[in-house]
Amino acid sequence: MQQSSSSVRTEKNSVGPVETKTVTFKGDNYILKLESGKTMSPVTVAYETYGRLSPSKDNAVLVCHALTGDAHAAGFHTKEPEEKPGWWDLLIGPGKPLDTERYFVICSNFLGGCKGSTGPSSINPATGKPYGLHFPFFTVRDMVMVQKWLVQDHLGINRLHAVIGGSLGGMQVLQWAISFPAMVRGALPIAATARMSPQAIAFNEVARQAIMSDPQWNFGLYEPQSQPSAGLGLARMIGHITYLSEDAMLRKFSRRFINGSRRGYKLGADFQVESYLHHQGSTFVERFDANTYLYITRAMDYFDLQADHGSLQNAFSSSRCSFLVISFTSDWLFPPACSQELVKALRMAGKNVSYCNIGSDQGHDAFLLPGNRMGEVVTGFLTRLEHED
Amino acid sequence: MQQSSSSVRTEKNSVGPVETKTVTFKGDNYILKLESGKTMSPVTVAYETYGRLSPSKDNAVLVCHALTGDAHAAGFHTKEPEEKPGWWDLLIGPGKPLDTERYFVICSNFLGGCKGSTGPSSINPATGKPYGLHFPFFTVRDMVMVQKWLVQDHLGINRLHAVIGGSLGGMQVLQWAISFPAMVRGALPIAATARMSPQAIAFNEVARQAIMSDPQWNFGLYEPQSQPSAGLGLARMIGHITYLSEDAMLRKFSRRFINGSRRGYKLGADFQVESYLHHQGSTFVERFDANTYLYITRAMDYFDLQADHGSLQNAFSSSRCSFLVISFTSDWLFPPACSQELVKALRMAGKNVSYCNIGSDQGHDAFLLPGNRMGEVVTGFLTRLEHED
Repeated sequence: MQQSSSSVRTEKNSVGPVETKTVTFKGDNYILKLESGKTMSPVTVAYETYGRLSPSKDNAVLVCHALTGDAHAAGFHTKEPEEKPGWWDLLIGPGKPLDTERYFVICSNFLGGCKGSTGPSSINPATGKPYGLHFPFFTVRDMVMVQKWLVQDHLGINRLHAVIGGSLGGMQVLQWAISFPAMVRGALPIAATARMSPQAIAFNEVARQAIMSDPQWNFGLYEPQSQPSAGLGLARMIGHITYLSEDAMLRKFSRRFINGSRRGYKLGADFQVESYLHHQGSTFVERFDANTYLYITRAMDYFDLQADHGSLQNAFSSSRCSFLVISFTSDWLFPPACSQELVKALRMAGKNVSYCNIGSDQGHDAFLLPGNRMGEVVTGFLTRLEHED
Repeated sequence: MQQSSSSVRTEKNSVGPVETKTVTFKGDNYILKLESGKTMSPVTVAYETYGRLSPSKDNAVLVCHALTGDAHAAGFHTKEPEEKPGWWDLLIGPGKPLDTERYFVICSNFLGGCKGSTGPSSINPATGKPYGLHFPFFTVRDMVMVQKWLVQDHLGINRLHAVIGGSLGGMQVLQWAISFPAMVRGALPIAATARMSPQAIAFNEVARQAIMSDPQWNFGLYEPQSQPSAGLGLARMIGHITYLSEDAMLRKFSRRFINGSRRGYKLGADFQVESYLHHQGSTFVERFDANTYLYITRAMDYFDLQADHGSLQNAFSSSRCSFLVISFTSDWLFPPACSQELVKALRMAGKNVSYCNIGSDQGHDAFLLPGNRMGEVVTGFLTRLEHED
């Protein structure tokens, strides 16, 4: 996913300085039973909150992040003027769609992440080294179970005003509506899908093969300071193509060369689109862990609500929330048809569902970018929810 | 590209046993002036022919192959019953669209290929070792120049009944109509584009990076028997995703697992679509050269008739042939819009052009596969051409 770089750092519309907190769930009550059959304990969760929880604890909004996101969704960690704000600062802050004057916004790094929560890059207490490939496989359902511990057991919130997220974040939103129907008032899956298509699995597999073919990967036994950078960078480049759209690429880069109008007759970057991808790859390697990438993409691949519940309509039979499903016209990774299939199933299951297919040439990444109508659609839905039930 | 495996080996509709011939162009008349400014001599061309050249030499059809093709377009090289026929056997043979009872069909491995024509894997006479990265960059225009030597100087044909090809083969067809207008009666660019989009360049670049990140690539200095197999296999897997369509993948693989209906909770192939891609990657490595892949994809990237001629309409101003442009509805690598842009420019340039957008869920590779209407459309056009001029 792209990092949004749109927000101007002003105190006016920013949540300002924030810090990531952690909580560790341990003891007999917190033995995580994974969908794979394995168990895991203890589990640490990194999270941030913005705004204030109301006395009746009814104004909490849970934000679920995507493949390469983290708990730092808004505000700033340092006072450095060049620091970029959290990844969804576009949406979270005073007067923004997730209005921190009204809502208590929570975002946690999901189970299996590499930004503070327990995952493949965490130290395995049994060996004193990173888990690496000894980390058990986890699923979206497992991620959501751990988020529930955070929300209910740690923060004392029994019902969320809303759960919202894009891409893999949207899959978690759907899982919340299914796993904990009593705890969700509104669900906003954005640019999501109820099951990964074989094409999306194929792209993930090629990305994984890029990592696992890098000799520095060493069957997952690399030292944190010597990642399989070439493979991980390549994985990111592959992913990044799928996050954009052909039209967005044409608009941003066209066929422009790096040096003027002439072909360089060379390998390596000659077109601007190539140097952009190289930059995406190399900066990603500095902030993400290769083994984690393998596990999270696998969790995405395994996501299939139809298979889990017999049908998509069945999957939502117990859900009690209102839904706002959002897709983007130029998203070809999880195309609008995925959202429309979801909407159809929700309607057949008799659920309260709104759908918005937002016109945009920004591709899958549109949910992270300014310049489309997502914000106002989200605002309208969250406000309307306040008058429901 | 996929290899077609549809043809049944019967003498009835096969051109039967064939062999690849070679011709070497050398001496002062054959110093190839490349578009890059470099020169090259001598140049060897591998080619096959099927059918008989008419006494008036007016029945020749030139077939141009795509990225990973070769001169062996039809028939069989051995008598082994398990041998697959040439890559376009579907189209070439007695009674087939390129009817060898009527036409003299020619197919050559293009300049820069690794199947008998001079290319990066050929021995550099100056060093006694493969050219590797010492091979000069070449373009589609350079490929077509060499094909012209083969057709006119070696085979003595002054005018081709038709030039036909898919994908990169279609780019060569367009270049023929521009470079040698007097030599072409009919041009059939299939699943082609007049210029590579930034998205298509991006996919090529990721594939090249996969090869160049493999330590066995060794800056192109690998021994032929120790290719950068992991990188080249990965490049092929990436390419292969773009040759299919989402619908074709759903139809062929859906979300089926390799072992029954249960998740394996593992890395490596767990879904059928993954093992299919792995197979595509590993078999490709046995039949193709990594440096060659780098150079040919670069030649594709540089293809841009608009930039070469100011506009697409200008590009074809001197062309004198009739055109049949064919696209496939589910091709997302070179989508129908690319063909439509071409058709529009040809019409504005006052050319005789027919266009067929064939309904198919087979994606870009449809031109290599049975089960669509391409064959009959080609037959109709070639027959009609016989009654023109």
